[in-house]
Amino acid sequence: MIKRNIHERMAIMDFEFEIIKTCKDTGARVGKFHTPHGSFDTPIFMPVGTQATVKAMTPRDLEEIGAQIILGNTYHLYMRPGHDIIKEAGGLHSFMTWDKPILTDSGGFQVFSLTDLRTIEEEGVYFRSHLDGSKHFIGPEKSMEIQNALGSDIIMAFDVCSPYPCDYDKAKKDMERTSRWAKRCKDAHSRNDQALFGIVQGSMYKDLRAASANELLAMDFPGYGIGGLSVGEPKPIMYEILDFLMPIMPKDKPRYLMGVGSPDCLVEGVLRGIDMFDCVHPTRIARNGTAMTSTGRVVVRNATYERDFTPLDSECDCYTCQNFTKAYLRHLVKAGEILAAILLSIHNLRFLINLMEDMRNAILDDRLLSFADDFKKKYGYI
Amino acid sequence: MIKRNIHERMAIMDFEFEIIKTCKDTGARVGKFHTPHGSFDTPIFMPVGTQATVKAMTPRDLEEIGAQIILGNTYHLYMRPGHDIIKEAGGLHSFMTWDKPILTDSGGFQVFSLTDLRTIEEEGVYFRSHLDGSKHFIGPEKSMEIQNALGSDIIMAFDVCSPYPCDYDKAKKDMERTSRWAKRCKDAHSRNDQALFGIVQGSMYKDLRAASANELLAMDFPGYGIGGLSVGEPKPIMYEILDFLMPIMPKDKPRYLMGVGSPDCLVEGVLRGIDMFDCVHPTRIARNGTAMTSTGRVVVRNATYERDFTPLDSECDCYTCQNFTKAYLRHLVKAGEILAAILLSIHNLRFLINLMEDMRNAILDDRLLSFADDFKKKYGYI
Repeated sequence: MIKRNIHERMAIMDFEFEIIKTCKDTGARVGKFHTPHGSFDTPIFMPVGTQATVKAMTPRDLEEIGAQIILGNTYHLYMRPGHDIIKEAGGLHSFMTWDKPILTDSGGFQVFSLTDLRTIEEEGVYFRSHLDGSKHFIGPEKSMEIQNALGSDIIMAFDVCSPYPCDYDKAKKDMERTSRWAKRCKDAHSRNDQALFGIVQGSMYKDLRAASANELLAMDFPGYGIGGLSVGEPKPIMYEILDFLMPIMPKDKPRYLMGVGSPDCLVEGVLRGIDMFDCVHPTRIARNGTAMTSTGRVVVRNATYERDFTPLDSECDCYTCQNFTKAYLRHLVKAGEILAAILLSIHNLRFLINLMEDMRNAILDDRLLSFADDFKKKYGYI
Repeated sequence: MIKRNIHERMAIMDFEFEIIKTCKDTGARVGKFHTPHGSFDTPIFMPVGTQATVKAMTPRDLEEIGAQIILGNTYHLYMRPGHDIIKEAGGLHSFMTWDKPILTDSGGFQVFSLTDLRTIEEEGVYFRSHLDGSKHFIGPEKSMEIQNALGSDIIMAFDVCSPYPCDYDKAKKDMERTSRWAKRCKDAHSRNDQALFGIVQGSMYKDLRAASANELLAMDFPGYGIGGLSVGEPKPIMYEILDFLMPIMPKDKPRYLMGVGSPDCLVEGVLRGIDMFDCVHPTRIARNGTAMTSTGRVVVRNATYERDFTPLDSECDCYTCQNFTKAYLRHLVKAGEILAAILLSIHNLRFLINLMEDMRNAILDDRLLSFADDFKKKYGYI
């Protein structure tokens, strides 16, 4: 028993959110979140490794670009290879050879996306596999069971993500169920070396967002996801919800804006006090031949780059920009070569990781607002 | 003029085939071929980078696995992106960021493979692009022009590769034309920092092989390809042709068995005195989820590896085997992840490169025959 208490205390101490500096002009802050697999700096962008791999990246590529924490998707890993196999492998870190922090989502968002294949009940979601049509069920307890087996450092509560647009009554019901499910997740969660985050829902209705936040805060999670944004609504609406919501959120807990990863949204999110972001966007557009650069998007396939023997982004320190030209990358994209996906994924992720580091430094140096202004002008998104 | 002479002499000196040891029991030998982009050890396996990339491999991955020379395909690079663009980039080395030796084929094999799209005349081959149907022509002079523009260290003569089976008259005509084209290639070749190899043809007819070899030897090339093998004939026939041909080939020039890359053929080729090999086989089967290992082929997708948490090949020192399990690789293959192609390509190429190094060491230590026997038993190919 004594041993267990010590272990519990150590594990709890492993999760600590340390705020290093708060921006005097904005809601932004610089922090460090400590987990049993090491710490990561906030604000942070987390590359997504849906099926236990960040697409087209080796773990050493991820380390090299400075990834400090990555995501796994509970739904996908549950379906294939199965959480039992990953548990037997020693957990997701060991299975995929990544010894830094991992966050897994709850599977909720994915099963809700199986629009024609699922039924939502109070106990959870009944659905058919997108792979073979087999019948499955995930509810709060099952999501905890799977994530406990995966052994990720941060796990997410099983929530109901309202679609956009969503009428008030449905949004209210989704939000209330999310709160009930968050409680059930908390009760079912069995490992103290994993931090369980609650997820704020409420669609685009401020009173529902406030109610959701208050109900979750009362449960005292070590961190909070903000779900149901970037689901199709115009960006100004997302920013308005964040403007409203952030002052309600506790200052001493990390705030994770789920599924957001375009450079402009990262800047706007940080300005409002978001600490964590994730998105498949950088790796997905990489596989389609599009790069994010310090001067905006580059569609590498364009004929204009046929004889452009300069790097993708002259300001970037990644392997791709240090070694290859736009003409070569264009050739690889046109020829459908895997190396195109590899090199553009390395670059796009490094670009976002650099952007987050630049913002952390700007906060530390009290110049975040001017950094954000410069970035907007240069990247050209406003 | 003096400057040019010095440059010419230096370039010629750059190409030197140094024989370090000849096996007393077999035709095998260990050597070193020096080129303007550095030297490579023989016998060697050369990974194939058809479209200016060894599929799924970064240049640094290639360096890490010990690749000393790689191939490019003249036909593919001529069609896309075009040799003019590669020349403008500073040549193929610079275009693809590979500063070690490169060998390019002549384009002959590829245009002959366009069975329904090409017409062969004495001047060369008229064909339509496999990409857009546009009309093109490659003959000996054009092949030299393209390869001169690519700037590869070793370039191949434009030859006629007889199909298998092939009747005697056609094989004879193909062989004779190959000799005439070899002469035209030699006359057209304009860069002395590129070594032009002739290619021996003659299908499975020993007298034609002998005639081809003699005609080419009279032209005194710095190295010789052996073409028209591994084109569908049973392996014992290929070995019989090599048994016959090798004693005719000059001892002081490298011998390159084109398009051969399965482990058993590499061993049998080395035993008969082959110095260079290339093949898409290791990277192609990697993308299909098959690995070459010290105990034979592993079809990674097989259910038997579902919970196999051991490396692909416990004897292998590659990144894949040092870091990942069969269970993980199987998951990646089943999920169709790019990382499967990356990790299996790294492994398969490293496996062949290790095999060649092992054979070089066995020759140096006077134990090639016992090495070959052991390998055959372990790999299980007899």
